[in-house]
Amino acid sequence: MPETEFATTLVVLDLTGIFVFAVTGALVAVRKNLDLFAATVLAGVTGLGGGFIRDVLIGATPPAALADWRYLLVPAAAGVLTFFFHPAIGRVERVVTLFDSFGLALFCVTGTLKAIDYGLGPLPAALLGMVTGIGGGILRDVLAGRVPVIFEGALYATPALAGAGVVVVLDRLGVPGAGLAAAGFTTCLGWRLLALVRGWQAPMPRGPANV
Amino acid sequence: MPETEFATTLVVLDLTGIFVFAVTGALVAVRKNLDLFAATVLAGVTGLGGGFIRDVLIGATPPAALADWRYLLVPAAAGVLTFFFHPAIGRVERVVTLFDSFGLALFCVTGTLKAIDYGLGPLPAALLGMVTGIGGGILRDVLAGRVPVIFEGALYATPALAGAGVVVVLDRLGVPGAGLAAAGFTTCLGWRLLALVRGWQAPMPRGPANV
Amino acid sequence: MPETEFATTLVVLDLTGIFVFAVTGALVAVRKNLDLFAATVLAGVTGLGGGFIRDVLIGATPPAALADWRYLLVPAAAGVLTFFFHPAIGRVERVVTLFDSFGLALFCVTGTLKAIDYGLGPLPAALLGMVTGIGGGILRDVLAGRVPVIFEGALYATPALAGAGVVVVLDRLGVPGAGLAAAGFTTCLGWRLLALVRGWQAPMPRGPANV
Repeated sequence: MPETEFATTLVVLDLTGIFVFAVTGALVAVRKNLDLFAATVLAGVTGLGGGFIRDVLIGATPPAALADWRYLLVPAAAGVLTFFFHPAIGRVERVVTLFDSFGLALFCVTGTLKAIDYGLGPLPAALLGMVTGIGGGILRDVLAGRVPVIFEGALYATPALAGAGVVVVLDRLGVPGAGLAAAGFTTCLGWRLLALVRGWQAPMPRGPANV
Repeated sequence: MPETEFATTLVVLDLTGIFVFAVTGALVAVRKNLDLFAATVLAGVTGLGGGFIRDVLIGATPPAALADWRYLLVPAAAGVLTFFFHPAIGRVERVVTLFDSFGLALFCVTGTLKAIDYGLGPLPAALLGMVTGIGGGILRDVLAGRVPVIFEGALYATPALAGAGVVVVLDRLGVPGAGLAAAGFTTCLGWRLLALVRGWQAPMPRGPANV
Repeated sequence: MPETEFATTLVVLDLTGIFVFAVTGALVAVRKNLDLFAATVLAGVTGLGGGFIRDVLIGATPPAALADWRYLLVPAAAGVLTFFFHPAIGRVERVVTLFDSFGLALFCVTGTLKAIDYGLGPLPAALLGMVTGIGGGILRDVLAGRVPVIFEGALYATPALAGAGVVVVLDRLGVPGAGLAAAGFTTCLGWRLLALVRGWQAPMPRGPANV
């Protein structure tokens, strides 16, 4: 596959992930009975927020998404479409969740690779890869006035961290980019889908919490 | 008007806008029964937060307000004054809202111009102009534990985006700074005031949202 | 004391403060019945968040903690330990609060000194010193879905600002690093402990707040 075709594939994958993340953001807005503007903002924040947090922390400002109008229009379009057609989209929410898992797996890999590119060590690079995957959803929930759903038992962040971990370990071992990306992506996606199908939950606190 | 006089006018306008934004922040703190410190922090966050988000995203750090003590003392003073005299200020809340609209119109213009200065394209520059206007209020509401009021139907962000949009379009067309700023400012302010007077609302979601 | 030994002492103090802050973050997660992942994230955010906000605002990216695995593992360990042993830790919460005050005093001093190092003036440097001390706790509370506890009358931020203020004033007067740090640290810690022991509260708003 020639270089430019590969780059195009990456952008298409990236925009697909952002689109689906953005749909989840707009759905939260609709379910909280927020207005069209909120749906668009929550769409944008969910789609781009993780990458923005990563870029601000590694000093890669302005974030790449701000230099490419496609990265701004795709989440905005997702927000507006979801706002007007939310009953139809709500009915296929399983499909949304499936694609959302793809997005998570993609972003934890690309986020980790970008952090490595900027000279970060394995542990912070993996953490920032995870943040790229989960940061948008956390911002979405905070802005919508609810505790982040990924804090309440959903196995979402752990697969992202695992995928990012695979990337940094294989990178250290000298595995080339494509194989490393595929391994990280598969690790995150596989774990996430298994957790969804089997209903796995993260450990919850035991015993009385004296408040 | 000589250069220095113009610069002074700009700073006075800027500080006036920050002062009024800060008053709205402290009023939220008082109404949530938060303490004097919270009133001062929410005043500062509301007055300066939008510009801080913009500056962090475009890499203009430290934000200009951190290099000028007037930009730190004005919102702090607004917070303390509002905390102690909130019954009187609450009675003239219509005036506060009027000045708040001036601040919004001013910040969406100055924020857009700063983003253009830092080399951003038209679409991201307009978005950052809007963020400069609305970011402080969003941070205020998140810190005070409520869903941002501008997500619940108020027509606030749309005028800011429109004003910012006018600025980037006229900038592309080569209109000089003063005319462009006046047009953007008037667009935002006019729309915002019309929305207030006529009770215009942003579109709300229709149909049942299956949760 | 030779240079390297002094540096080691500083790192140990720093990591101790981060550990205790992280414990308070994980305790909030447990009390909100959030999962193990949330406990770890809230631990990390509480321990490192204040420094991250400071570093992003002064442009010192990536934040130093991201370049040193100890600064990432210590809060993670605190989060996991607290999650599993929270009943025992909850019983010694007075000790946690005591060490938390040490952490606050330490971070307001080191944060101010770092801001001065990056060329900020006295007022913004003191503010960023305070933010270093209180920022993590604010992020923790926002992510856990509650209004920051330091907004509801606790005398927590004021001692931090006072300690930071002592540092910038003595720095201007040419007092050398060790004396200046000791004075700022003692000011913050003394005030904070007195407030705890005597039950001092920040001023609360008076009169009816017309909503």
